[in-house]
Formats: sequence, C-alpha cells, structure tokens
Amino acid sequence: MTVLILTSEEDVTADMVVAALHSLGTPVLRLNPADLPGKAVLSADYAHGDFTGHLSVNGHVLSMGGLRSVWVRRPGEPAAHAPEPSPWLTAETRQALYGMLYSATARWMNHPRDAERARLKPWQLRVAHLSGFAVPPTVFTTSPRLAREFAEEHKDVVVKSASGPPPEEPGTALPTTLIGADADFSAVAAGPALLQRYVPKRADIRLTCVGTQLFAARKTAEPGQVDGRYGDTGHPWQPVSVPGRIAVAVREYVVLASLAYAAFDFAEDEDGVWWFLECNQGGQFGFVELETGQPVSEAVARWLSQVPAHLRPAGRR
Amino acid sequence: MTVLILTSEEDVTADMVVAALHSLGTPVLRLNPADLPGKAVLSADYAHGDFTGHLSVNGHVLSMGGLRSVWVRRPGEPAAHAPEPSPWLTAETRQALYGMLYSATARWMNHPRDAERARLKPWQLRVAHLSGFAVPPTVFTTSPRLAREFAEEHKDVVVKSASGPPPEEPGTALPTTLIGADADFSAVAAGPALLQRYVPKRADIRLTCVGTQLFAARKTAEPGQVDGRYGDTGHPWQPVSVPGRIAVAVREYVVLASLAYAAFDFAEDEDGVWWFLECNQGGQFGFVELETGQPVSEAVARWLSQVPAHLRPAGRR
Repeated sequence: MTVLILTSEEDVTADMVVAALHSLGTPVLRLNPADLPGKAVLSADYAHGDFTGHLSVNGHVLSMGGLRSVWVRRPGEPAAHAPEPSPWLTAETRQALYGMLYSATARWMNHPRDAERARLKPWQLRVAHLSGFAVPPTVFTTSPRLAREFAEEHKDVVVKSASGPPPEEPGTALPTTLIGADADFSAVAAGPALLQRYVPKRADIRLTCVGTQLFAARKTAEPGQVDGRYGDTGHPWQPVSVPGRIAVAVREYVVLASLAYAAFDFAEDEDGVWWFLECNQGGQFGFVELETGQPVSEAVARWLSQVPAHLRPAGRR
Repeated sequence: MTVLILTSEEDVTADMVVAALHSLGTPVLRLNPADLPGKAVLSADYAHGDFTGHLSVNGHVLSMGGLRSVWVRRPGEPAAHAPEPSPWLTAETRQALYGMLYSATARWMNHPRDAERARLKPWQLRVAHLSGFAVPPTVFTTSPRLAREFAEEHKDVVVKSASGPPPEEPGTALPTTLIGADADFSAVAAGPALLQRYVPKRADIRLTCVGTQLFAARKTAEPGQVDGRYGDTGHPWQPVSVPGRIAVAVREYVVLASLAYAAFDFAEDEDGVWWFLECNQGGQFGFVELETGQPVSEAVARWLSQVPAHLRPAGRR
C-alpha cells in the first residue's frame, strides 16, 4: 500500500515526510499535478460495475487498489507544465486526476473538499465557538457604520485579511494592524473588513494536530507586539504542554471540520488563556519541528502509512 | 423564513422559481454575489459564543437566523461588479459571503462543496456503478496505447469532453463523436481522453430529481444519432414514467452524492435499458418544463420553502 504525495518539486517539508516514510518502509509516489499529462500518465477504467485505475510517474506505477493515502501538500495546477497549457486542458486534467482519486478508497490529509471549507475564516470562527474555544469578538462587514460601532464597543481592535496575501501579489505582507474607533471606516464599503477585538498577548501559540496527536509550541511576545509573523522577537519557539480543555476543543474542531491535519494559532493573554485566532488546514510545520525538535513530520508519515484498524489483518488489530 | 437565491441578473429559470415561491407566499431574496460589496451589504458578527449575520440587497434585509434555504443557481464571481475588481477583492468577498452562509443553519440546493465533487465525471461513474445503474464501459486516459486497446475491445466508441466546453471559449460546441479503433490516438498523450462504449439509442432520457420527486422526459432519437444535444430531431420531449429500479438507483445516487437537485441523462437502447451517461447537479430544467408541462420549478420552490420535519411546530409534524 502506497502513499501518494501531491506537491510541487521544491518542497522541503515534503522532503522531511518522504524521509520519514522511507524510514518506516512505506512506499511513496510523489506527483506534481502540473506534470500531468507529460511526465505522469494516468488511466482510469470504469467497466462492468468495477473501477481500476493507475498513475505512473517516471516509470513508477501506482494502482488505485494499492493506494493507502493521499497527502495534499502543495499541488500545482493540473497540466500547468504542458507544452500548450490552457484553462480547458487544466479543467480536463483536473477531472481525470481528482475524479480518479475520489473514486478510490483512501485516507486523505486533507480531502480537498474539507480543505476548501476549512479555509473560510467566518466558518472557522463558528466552528471554534461550537468546539469550546475562547474566540475574540469578530465582525466581517461591508458596512462602515457597523465597523465603527464594533470599534467603539471593543476599543482596541485589529484589522486583518480574511483570505491572506493578494493572489496577484503573493509575496505581499498584510500584517494584522491595531486601529482605534477614530479611524476612517469609509473604505469598508468597497471591500469587506475583518475586525477583531485585540488580545494583549504574552505569547504566540502554534498547535499542530496530526490525526489525534497534538504538538504545541510557544513563543514569548514582545509587549505591545500585534502580529508575531513579522519581525523577529529574538525568542525561540519552545515546546509547551496542551491544557486539557484545549485538547478537547481541538478534537471537537477537527471532527466537525473533517480534518486529519490542522495548525492552530492562539494568542496567550496575561491570564494564560489561549484565544483562538485561526486554524490553517495546510499550515507549515517545518519551522516548528526545526526549532522545537517535535517529531511532526514523523507523525504525518505514520498517519499516512497507517492501515485503518478494520482493514488490518486480524492478528494485528 | 426566507429563501436566498444566488444567481446572476438574467436568469429565466430563476424567474420561474421566484414566481412559484411568490405563489407559495415564501419570502425570497435574490443576490448576485458579483454585486457584493456595492448593491448588497453584508455583516457577520461572531461574539460571546454566538453568531449573527445579515445580508441586505436594495433595502431588503435577510438575517441569517431567518434563512431557510439557499439555492445556488448561477452565482456571479463575488465582487465582479466592483468599481475596481481584483482577485484579492474577490477572495476577501468570497470569504465573507460564503463563510457567513456556511455558518448559518440552512438547507442547500446544492451545497457548493457537494456540487464541486459532483462535477467530477470519473467520480460520477463510480457512484453510478455503486448506485446500481447500467453504465457504459468508460476509460479516462493519457495513454495512447490504452486508448487504442479500449477502442479495439469495444469497437464502437465515442469520445467526449469530461469538463464541458473550454472555459476560455464557453460557446464552443464539443459534441460527443463516434470513432473507430483505427483512429489516431497519439494526441491522447497531450490531454486526457474520455472514451466510452457507444450505446445505440432509440431515445434520450432526461430525469430531473428534486428532493425525492422525480420527473422523467423522453425524446425519440434519429437512428444513428450520437449526440442529442446538437441538432433538432423534430421529436419533442414527452413525459415518461420512471422504472422502479431506476427510481431506486437515483435515490442511492443523490444520497451518496448529497444532492438535493440533480439532472440525469440516460440513453435508452433498443432493449429499453436506460444507460447512465451523466448526472449534472446544476442541469437546466426550463426546457423540459416548457415542453412537457412537468412542474419542476414548483417542486424546486416547494423544496426550498419546506421546513424540515424536526423544525416544524409539534402539531404540524
């Protein structure tokens, strides 16, 4: 049984997981969907009530019957490397590749349809509430009046991007920014704003969830620091234990969201409360593993290799 | 409780359903996501473990607590009508709109995540098999050798597009085409091919499923006609009753695919067997309703208006 990794060629994090899979003796096939068709060949046959399929990359063949799991890491656009790429060729190739993979019985980390939903920030906050996390009051609005009222009610408020950096300029930094109720909110009418009550924090927390395994890391914040992603505080990421009620809430969240992998960001306030900021279903873990020594890539490799209990030979259950 | 229809401005089929909703006395709000922000205003507030949200279009306000159902008909791209549209503004607006709608408790026809999966042709064939339909043997492949072998095995074979007309030229016709085993299959290496055993048919069948209601229509085919979508045969669509085993298979299919609405296309062969060709989760029904008089738009309106049994006042269950 083989693990399929969908990612682009240069991906150091994938390299770490591939090394861990090799240590476990688990066969692995790496495919960049951009290389299909071309370097990769696909065939899926639907006949006589049955389905067979295979994928071959550089002479290595993976049959859909032998597919254990799919890790959706950083896949390129299907057919992006074709000699004559086009939106239509991409659409046809996406149909063939994902249609075949969805037809197979496999574990996904994470399934694209769950990943897509999990990216929606407002939905994240709703699920975080339902899961029992402390969530700072937040509003998404295109109404300047409601934005101002929110800022007046909560005094210190931050403004963020919901979708991340602009797709047309992916390198652009959009740091979370502190604003006051006297700010000019008129631009909110032209594009939805995400406003959130500011949480004065003494540390950033990154909690990585792999199946049922949790790895939390903590980095002390500088007093008054708003966005820990930009600017080095000089403090390292250090392993930290996970409070019991956080572990319960994480479990609730990943079940509600059907996620096998999730990276949670929290702000730890002066009282030690962990405030939910976001959950990134595709969040990086390389930097945490390097600084803390937490074996996240090994956990990912084990999850991908694992045979679900009901499929194991009887003696090994 | 209000029905929200996501569609573009010119949409005759939506007009038919809106008229049926008016007859039922069901409040309805129509939104083109392209008009947000601008004509439409949105606000979603996540505070104190709770969620409130509203959407207003031309002064009509819909609160998320009063949302009964969402009909995803033909929504425009979020923010497409903005004075300064950009991929980033679209991404932010999509986050705000769909993140808020996903946070609400509503019935969807169809939920975008189910719609997205249901569009994948290879997955459709797998689900059709599992549901008990007769499915013509089909292969999706980028291997010229396997394409030729398939054509040699099945003799009369048709080639189709999996994804439909090219997105860059949406008006282009890509009719299903009959080919022989002596065709040149070398181009398959440059783009995946969908090859299917040809079903000589005496009629086309369109079966529209709305919740648990089925409407089937039949159109006699010309002998030798391959693709009924292009060229008028002179035969009208006429209502036809649904065979029992087809009704069971349709029910299986829409449950496996989580679809509230689905339009199935079948080829009826000389023996009267209905062969599954495809299931379009967003398929048109206006032409069937006009030719057959089957009340599809009323059924859609009733499904959207319906209060699920467990939410009805006790006396009305």
